[in-house]
Amino acid sequence: MMEIAELPTPSLVLDRRILKRNIATMAAALGRHRVTLRPHMKTAKSIDVARLVLGDAGGGITVSTLAEAEYFAAHGIGDILHAVGITPAKLEQVAKLNAAGADVAVITDDIDAAAAIRAQTAPVRALIEIDTGEGRGGVGPEDEALMAVAEALGPSLAGVITHAGHSYGARDKAAMAAIAEAERAGVVRAAERLRAAGKTVAIVSMGSSPTALAAASYAGITEVRAGVYMFGDLFQAAIGTHGPEDIAVTVLASVIGRRAERHQLLIDAGAIALSKDRSTEATAEDWGFGHLRAVEGGAALGRALVQRAYQEHGVVACDPALAFPALAVGDKVLVAPNHICLTAAAHDRYFVTDDGVGVAEVWPRVNGW
Amino acid sequence: MMEIAELPTPSLVLDRRILKRNIATMAAALGRHRVTLRPHMKTAKSIDVARLVLGDAGGGITVSTLAEAEYFAAHGIGDILHAVGITPAKLEQVAKLNAAGADVAVITDDIDAAAAIRAQTAPVRALIEIDTGEGRGGVGPEDEALMAVAEALGPSLAGVITHAGHSYGARDKAAMAAIAEAERAGVVRAAERLRAAGKTVAIVSMGSSPTALAAASYAGITEVRAGVYMFGDLFQAAIGTHGPEDIAVTVLASVIGRRAERHQLLIDAGAIALSKDRSTEATAEDWGFGHLRAVEGGAALGRALVQRAYQEHGVVACDPALAFPALAVGDKVLVAPNHICLTAAAHDRYFVTDDGVGVAEVWPRVNGW
Repeated sequence: MMEIAELPTPSLVLDRRILKRNIATMAAALGRHRVTLRPHMKTAKSIDVARLVLGDAGGGITVSTLAEAEYFAAHGIGDILHAVGITPAKLEQVAKLNAAGADVAVITDDIDAAAAIRAQTAPVRALIEIDTGEGRGGVGPEDEALMAVAEALGPSLAGVITHAGHSYGARDKAAMAAIAEAERAGVVRAAERLRAAGKTVAIVSMGSSPTALAAASYAGITEVRAGVYMFGDLFQAAIGTHGPEDIAVTVLASVIGRRAERHQLLIDAGAIALSKDRSTEATAEDWGFGHLRAVEGGAALGRALVQRAYQEHGVVACDPALAFPALAVGDKVLVAPNHICLTAAAHDRYFVTDDGVGVAEVWPRVNGW
Repeated sequence: MMEIAELPTPSLVLDRRILKRNIATMAAALGRHRVTLRPHMKTAKSIDVARLVLGDAGGGITVSTLAEAEYFAAHGIGDILHAVGITPAKLEQVAKLNAAGADVAVITDDIDAAAAIRAQTAPVRALIEIDTGEGRGGVGPEDEALMAVAEALGPSLAGVITHAGHSYGARDKAAMAAIAEAERAGVVRAAERLRAAGKTVAIVSMGSSPTALAAASYAGITEVRAGVYMFGDLFQAAIGTHGPEDIAVTVLASVIGRRAERHQLLIDAGAIALSKDRSTEATAEDWGFGHLRAVEGGAALGRALVQRAYQEHGVVACDPALAFPALAVGDKVLVAPNHICLTAAAHDRYFVTDDGVGVAEVWPRVNGW
């Protein structure tokens, strides 16, 4: 069996022990409620991860690209929600997938797009996007536009959907719970208005990883979407979605330079391998472009962080409280990422470990569009 | 012929007219000197672009990953400089490529890595990395370590190399020219010290796009490396490397939402398709995550910029001086990027146009490691 320390660098390492624990944590949080999880696969983009999350019970998923929809449908998961506002051209691709046996639903908040959905000869189910405070996409629960879009959709209307992305601005569980309640109440209110007008609203969908774990009530909600919780990252740890020990995916890198006089290391994970996401800059713990961690059995590196990120170089500021690490050029380290969705997007596979030492499996990802 | 406006989104669009002009500009700048261009392919990562840059004369290239080295060698370009500090494991891969007929040279600033290079049974040529002010990798021209690394390399020593990456901190041609002169003088000084000690230093290599275009003298330099100039981007335009009209590669995106009341558009190019690079934040012209431009024939969009970037959503702040754009969901726009090296890294191909309307060719990229 190949060992983590022998892998080419940079590479993505997925610790299946932590992944399973994160999946169990979400299942327990939602298990107290009568609500279904529709996992968002935009982070993992992997059929192997999807199977772990869905388990024997199966069920549907959420995706962010047509490439994901095509990939998961080809791997036997046909119940898919494409949760980014649809365009007429993408609608044609969805219709093709559905004609081939999938059941991909789309979302919209636009009257013209809604009319295009209704005009499809093969019906495509659509959810109306509701804005419950994020201010990105969606119509407000009380907006007149809600009824207009529903009218335009006609029999294609299958439900309502919201995403409290502004939960990323919360910094503790109480704040997340408050946003979760506003998310729930807003999307349920939209469903009620539509039902009062005689519409059938089968699906009432909400979700973000922070709110999914923090919500006190799911009254009126039929399904919850969340994705990043599976892997976790420095940002989610910083805002309290999970602990720092719950980060399942890291970037394996090699030391490519040593600067003892500056207390710096150079590694071969830079702006592409890590992404330039700096989410933790907005939190109490700024980790630069990532937090350096020792591979299994290596000496602790303390508060070592990637201070600068060039295309293929990361400049590591070593922990000032520790002696300069005894690492040679070629030695391996792990980097915990700011925002795993973006970091993983640069990599085409996961090297899966069950003990931090050996590579148990290699799982591909579906990138691009 | 397919048209740009019919392409799936997000996609990379490469305007060959601008690419050719940028290539000619660099050729003219270097043509006044007795110096060879060794184009850095880390930005384009495309054999088709490499062939345009090298032209009939051919010649060698620079790369930033082993994946690039393998790809270009397989496409007939064997003279390759791998310009990121080598590790023992990567050295083995280089040796394999060379055994198969390529001539990949490596760089180092580390005594142990130098000893590993010398220990290869099949010789691998190595350049010593010199720090001429960037403060990333490399030994100083006057450092004792320079001689120690040269000793460790023994007959594998082929030259010296420097990269004035701190030229990205310059904001006009005069500042760039001053950095270029320090870059030149520093790496030439390192070569002179080695020669005075009896070493053969065949290659004296310098380069960054800003300094390559601004340098007044290349005395003592044998080759210049540059890459981003081929495509250009908002950051290079902001610091004066080229003009805003010289950006050859943009991201085609679809409108996925309209917010007239907020003067905002949503597009389907977000943090993956554009990258989270915010280089222009440090310049006089902050373009957010990118500058929206009309497709050929579309109404001018003025100063419209991508204000926020979610994984697959870009939030566009439209030009406050213009009326809200008459764009429907599904209509196409182009986004000029902050930093094309990172933006392009998320895409697997270029859609090449010669008139801004039709797709003339599709060129693949070699991503990953």
